[in-house]
Amino acid sequence: MKKSLGPKTIVFPCPVLIIGSYDAGGGPNIMNVAWGGICCSKPPCVNISLRKATYTYDSIVARKAFTVNIPSAGQVREADYAGIYSGRDENKFAALGLTAQKSELVDAPILAEFPLNLECRVVHSVELGLHTLFVGEILDVKADESVLREDGKFDLEKLAPFLYAVDQRAYFAIGEKVADAFSVGKKEGSGG
Amino acid sequence: MKKSLGPKTIVFPCPVLIIGSYDAGGGPNIMNVAWGGICCSKPPCVNISLRKATYTYDSIVARKAFTVNIPSAGQVREADYAGIYSGRDENKFAALGLTAQKSELVDAPILAEFPLNLECRVVHSVELGLHTLFVGEILDVKADESVLREDGKFDLEKLAPFLYAVDQRAYFAIGEKVADAFSVGKKEGSGG
Repeated sequence: MKKSLGPKTIVFPCPVLIIGSYDAGGGPNIMNVAWGGICCSKPPCVNISLRKATYTYDSIVARKAFTVNIPSAGQVREADYAGIYSGRDENKFAALGLTAQKSELVDAPILAEFPLNLECRVVHSVELGLHTLFVGEILDVKADESVLREDGKFDLEKLAPFLYAVDQRAYFAIGEKVADAFSVGKKEGSGG
Repeated sequence: MKKSLGPKTIVFPCPVLIIGSYDAGGGPNIMNVAWGGICCSKPPCVNISLRKATYTYDSIVARKAFTVNIPSAGQVREADYAGIYSGRDENKFAALGLTAQKSELVDAPILAEFPLNLECRVVHSVELGLHTLFVGEILDVKADESVLREDGKFDLEKLAPFLYAVDQRAYFAIGEKVADAFSVGKKEGSGG
């Protein structure tokens, strides 16, 4: 039996994207965004949604650039901190002892200690209501060598990304593999 | 040491969103989308990206509506099937023995057997390149009562949503809770 919950922002899972930007004075800042993900394969693009009231909003509008930094489970405190406090009040990189490394491709800082970083140039923005959706073209993906396997793919156990469960207001680890994609759903007798 | 991987579509995690739509003849169809997520809190909106070549693309453009249906881990075969085969060639609901229930709010079918359904009206579309990003306003969320706790929140063990790991081309379960959000990152002595 289905129950109607009304219009709510429910999708499982949501990612934990730590957005890097430079403010008007050139100070580096990070914020925590759960509304976002990949939105185009060619060119590779990622979308993130921000409220206009955030400090990062003005930075992205002005610099037309941001980074997406993905933390490991061991960095959950830093990720959550970035979502609680505002860059208006403090330099969160300094407060957390993190390194803002200048991107050579876009006008935004890379969070050096996080194992996965996307450098993005804003190509679209859409006003939706409380949130503005920004589309960033991904100019490069950088990864810590320690989280890559020999074949160049990510070692999920070492990367240890985590997700945000919006309804629970909690972060969860990634669990066991359920199945191979483009495989488990194949019709019987259709091979591989 | 960071390694440059070039421009790639890498974000962990991606969701597994099964998109319901009606084709020109009124036939129900589903497809599997990993490029999507929540993009606005007020009004609640979800974004999905589709290639123009997909059968669903024309349906969404014509009907300005879609549903997002989230499977449980036990429905991974059906979800993967929806991503492998095209609605041009067959009725995937019929092939999988699934029920297309007409939404009372939007011109799109709800996948009745999946435990979580969002009924969405298209409010924006953005051409990005290979993919078009559609923003749907969420008019209602429906959930199977069996996956809800008494307090109305989702029981993640019963819902058992899963995620797509793009680099691995595999589906993974949601694991253990890592921490409470808006909590683990609080400064010492700030309470809560």
